[in-house]
Amino acid sequence: MTTATAPRLTAKGAATRARIVAAAADLVLARGVGGTSLDDVRAGTLTSKSQLFHYFPGGKTELVMAIATYQFERVLQAQRPYLETLDTWADWDGWRDALLAHYGTQPHWGCPVGTLVGELTGTDPVAAAQVAGHLDSWCGYLRDGLRRMRDSGLLRRDADPDRLALAVFASVQGGLLLTQATRSIEPLSAALDAALTALHAAAPTPPRS
Amino acid sequence: MTTATAPRLTAKGAATRARIVAAAADLVLARGVGGTSLDDVRAGTLTSKSQLFHYFPGGKTELVMAIATYQFERVLQAQRPYLETLDTWADWDGWRDALLAHYGTQPHWGCPVGTLVGELTGTDPVAAAQVAGHLDSWCGYLRDGLRRMRDSGLLRRDADPDRLALAVFASVQGGLLLTQATRSIEPLSAALDAALTALHAAAPTPPRS
Repeated sequence: MTTATAPRLTAKGAATRARIVAAAADLVLARGVGGTSLDDVRAGTLTSKSQLFHYFPGGKTELVMAIATYQFERVLQAQRPYLETLDTWADWDGWRDALLAHYGTQPHWGCPVGTLVGELTGTDPVAAAQVAGHLDSWCGYLRDGLRRMRDSGLLRRDADPDRLALAVFASVQGGLLLTQATRSIEPLSAALDAALTALHAAAPTPPRS
Repeated sequence: MTTATAPRLTAKGAATRARIVAAAADLVLARGVGGTSLDDVRAGTLTSKSQLFHYFPGGKTELVMAIATYQFERVLQAQRPYLETLDTWADWDGWRDALLAHYGTQPHWGCPVGTLVGELTGTDPVAAAQVAGHLDSWCGYLRDGLRRMRDSGLLRRDADPDRLALAVFASVQGGLLLTQATRSIEPLSAALDAALTALHAAAPTPPRS
């Protein structure tokens, strides 16, 4: 949707737009979408009204969608290289550690993508659908890894990779929500450990490693 | 905190206040805290400005806290009687089914308590702390049940009930976030099944029932 409404930009223009998105993302992280007006973004990014309209002709929805994509890409980046190579139990442990390291530095923020769901569902269905798509893409990496592990025999033939991926991803999102509520990384850590325990329970007996 | 600022009310006054809270809770569920102004609440509840101030002298924070408590109590009620008696594996299965039945009728709303975390953390620390307290109380029921199950031998002596409770509760919250994003109860169902698998993995071998 973003590309459909965004203007063609010069390299300098694209850099300016990216700067606005990054700064606005911080505002939304701190105050929520509802607590961040376009006036706040203008003030926080030293941007004029006409500039903001130039870069985001679709208004707040377009800006929010750009923020969601920006945060989504950052969160994926923090999980690399494990995210694309969840082929062994050691990969899952590495992924777990990468998540804890990333969010451990900012436990009070929760997940900058997941927190958008609650805010946008009732107020901005277009942006909410985009965020749901990001979450599905994220979960898709877990799904793909678990399918490969079933194919390679690390999971039982009767394991359901799609359902297991949903469960692990729910543990990530719920762990982050509780991490934000408690300002401690412990809920995410406990949630990931239990999720990995559930995955191991879907391995053949005795488990291979 | 609510009782500290709320005025003494007659029975009729208390009923009016409760009616405003229930109606405002629906508005916040649909639009989020940031998307719901006191003007919206006045219009949605046919209440005058002075009436609203009479019932909520602490303003929006007090109203939001009353809404959070109202939703918290509703969510606990939906999990009864299992919530207080999570003493056997059958109790956990009953609790799981009660959660799925409750949220299955309203998958697009997510958790009316959990969704407040992301919105309030940066904008209203007082209300955010109250919501965090509600979440901890909710998780406390799971914790207490798992402690009793360890004491009765249904969990191993080396099991960590507090950490397991956090993990199960994260599955509930994350499952509900993804249920809201996808408008399907499947993520909550998958998350709860995996959480219960992780609990069973903490049972003595062979597991007792």
